[in-house]
Amino acid sequence: MAQSGRRPHVVVIGAGFGGLRTVKALADVEVDVTLVDARNHHTFQPLLYQVATAGLDVDDVCAAVRGIVAKQANARAVQARMTSLDSDAQRVELDTGQSLEFDHLVLAMGAVTADFGVPGVAEHAFGLKSAADARLLRNHVLTCFEQAAADEQARARLTTVVIVGGGPTGVEMAGGLAELFDRVLRSDFPDVDIDEARVVLVEGAPDVLGAFQPALRAKALDRLKRFGVDVRLGTTVAGVGSASVTFTDGTSIDTSTVVWAAGVRANPVGAVLGFETGHGGRIVVDEDLRVPSHANIYVVGDLAIDPQNPLPQVAPVAMQGGDHVARSIAAAVASTATPPPFEYVDKGSMATIGRNAAVVQLPNGFKLSGFVGWSAWLGLHLIMLIGFRNRANVLVNWAWNYLTYDRGSRVIVELDAKAASGSV
Amino acid sequence: MAQSGRRPHVVVIGAGFGGLRTVKALADVEVDVTLVDARNHHTFQPLLYQVATAGLDVDDVCAAVRGIVAKQANARAVQARMTSLDSDAQRVELDTGQSLEFDHLVLAMGAVTADFGVPGVAEHAFGLKSAADARLLRNHVLTCFEQAAADEQARARLTTVVIVGGGPTGVEMAGGLAELFDRVLRSDFPDVDIDEARVVLVEGAPDVLGAFQPALRAKALDRLKRFGVDVRLGTTVAGVGSASVTFTDGTSIDTSTVVWAAGVRANPVGAVLGFETGHGGRIVVDEDLRVPSHANIYVVGDLAIDPQNPLPQVAPVAMQGGDHVARSIAAAVASTATPPPFEYVDKGSMATIGRNAAVVQLPNGFKLSGFVGWSAWLGLHLIMLIGFRNRANVLVNWAWNYLTYDRGSRVIVELDAKAASGSV
Repeated sequence: MAQSGRRPHVVVIGAGFGGLRTVKALADVEVDVTLVDARNHHTFQPLLYQVATAGLDVDDVCAAVRGIVAKQANARAVQARMTSLDSDAQRVELDTGQSLEFDHLVLAMGAVTADFGVPGVAEHAFGLKSAADARLLRNHVLTCFEQAAADEQARARLTTVVIVGGGPTGVEMAGGLAELFDRVLRSDFPDVDIDEARVVLVEGAPDVLGAFQPALRAKALDRLKRFGVDVRLGTTVAGVGSASVTFTDGTSIDTSTVVWAAGVRANPVGAVLGFETGHGGRIVVDEDLRVPSHANIYVVGDLAIDPQNPLPQVAPVAMQGGDHVARSIAAAVASTATPPPFEYVDKGSMATIGRNAAVVQLPNGFKLSGFVGWSAWLGLHLIMLIGFRNRANVLVNWAWNYLTYDRGSRVIVELDAKAASGSV
Repeated sequence: MAQSGRRPHVVVIGAGFGGLRTVKALADVEVDVTLVDARNHHTFQPLLYQVATAGLDVDDVCAAVRGIVAKQANARAVQARMTSLDSDAQRVELDTGQSLEFDHLVLAMGAVTADFGVPGVAEHAFGLKSAADARLLRNHVLTCFEQAAADEQARARLTTVVIVGGGPTGVEMAGGLAELFDRVLRSDFPDVDIDEARVVLVEGAPDVLGAFQPALRAKALDRLKRFGVDVRLGTTVAGVGSASVTFTDGTSIDTSTVVWAAGVRANPVGAVLGFETGHGGRIVVDEDLRVPSHANIYVVGDLAIDPQNPLPQVAPVAMQGGDHVARSIAAAVASTATPPPFEYVDKGSMATIGRNAAVVQLPNGFKLSGFVGWSAWLGLHLIMLIGFRNRANVLVNWAWNYLTYDRGSRVIVELDAKAASGSV
């Protein structure tokens, strides 16, 4: 509720696709907006697998939140974690010691990797939800190959990567790794027989890309196999160790690298706010994306669930949710009629398997695959990337990778500079 | 000495400018070459300050050693540290457990930052010798500004950077930071008064860029001041703490960020090999860059010193040294006449202060500065960068930065992904 003498204050927690879209859609509304995120950057998560497979740089898929927000007169950014929320006093506390009073609050903290209680995942598996995750995984895979070059005994384990989860993330990661192995590491590591290196994709369901039409699932599976990926369908993981992964059928694979792409759950921060949560820990919202008990608190994206109309945890849902919430806030501020309930418009799905190979499914049943699908995937992702500079760099990197089969980013940078450099 | 039945084996330790040039110059010589480096990448050190000031990505200034070497039929690369050298048995041991017998050995492990015994440097100051150093410094500066936005009391300290050392590295770092502050952080941090943020450059001598002609030193000093850098000449550091730096005149500056660019010493690995060392711990070599006691062991670059003819620790000396050593090895292998002693040809020096401002000094007394000098600096560095892909990306980043005054890389990536992501 606007107090007299100042404009209503909208606080948005989370600078992912949902939060960022909310802020942008409020650009022409008579409000002040504060965007809070624990990181200083937006992460373009759909391309993290390219960072992990040495195709793109970290800076290509991240954009500084302050830089994005600086262009918008009514918005400012704060790097901080929310430590508490008082819904009645309309105030959030931040770990920087700051406290923000709000008239409208938008929660958009997204999702994190879910281990579904499988032992060893938290300790040994690699996630792929942040730029740091992707960089860590890249460092690890390249370091394993370096070790494999010197250690014949452990070579098979060191050059085997097991990816758990046959959704778009797992499929894209598997395809990207298979290309990295075949096109780059084969020549970089003459001492290692790359044909003995393995990319294994494990999926509990009978198909990869379960959200796609059967014909596209079959195409994706065929492509993965042609790229040399060992696809194991109907297989579920019982446990992950530092040197192996075990399946529920009792078999196991020796590996130093398990990538966990089996699914997500809501950001656990959501659960401690005191609101009702539903499937996967997502905060229950009404048809307007509001928390039922508080008309001025909204939840968008992966963190939200309307039990009457559960939606997939994908970027387009978050972005359209952000647009909707901005419309609702604008209506409340201007005291005009509440807009119609949120309705998600599915514009289709896509997943790329590798060079010249992607599957695209449009809502009218239209589908694309192969080179045409891949071109569509490429174009859309270039357009979606935030900031021209990132686009230009990504274009240079992709063109270079495509033309030369090279991957320019296969540089292991020590994560702990002080310990590693020994220089000062 | 070549054993019958196999080609002579040349082992090169270090993939900096000197080691890499040695390997390349041996491409057409009848030898097998093994290049060993503790990192998996060559680092283009002259541009690390651009990574630290958010102008370039880590991957722009690094190139995978295996990728460089893969193009050369007689060379291979190993990522490892040398743990011991037996000069008489002609064998080096690596931390991977491998052991390499050599006919010729080239030591090219370069230099590390020297703290000259000043207390607190090792614990609190930031170096700028590796990509990880540069990334850590960038993260730190941006994090300090985030903290400054939330903490008015500590703001002055958090937004003050003190750079120690007025050589090219210190001057370039000071200019780059001043630009970052003025052009980017000013708009990113509306809560912080950038005019109170300070870049301080400290130099013990009465001039910056002491290796340059007086006219160019004066030009550089003038430019630094125009960019807003607080230059303190004739000032030496007594100690560095976590929140301040103290000078020998008893004064001090409150700062959370001290960049130590005051000088280098030879890689300490050199000192444990049992060879005679000279000034700065550099291994003493003869006029042929050989260790006097062992005709088949060479030292090139920052690690070497010929007491009769001490040369500066800069990239051109290392590269020309690599060429010379390759010629000597080629002559030994072919049993032809030993080439004439190593003679360094000084092709000039350059340092950039910032946008449109650089100083260039050629050995014939010719000098350039301002926009012309800056263009020369830009062109030379683009040509020198290894690998087309890096060049293209660097060009995109620089063009973008120049045209928009933006810095695209101001992304804080957590260095410890496992601790920071909380995702798996």
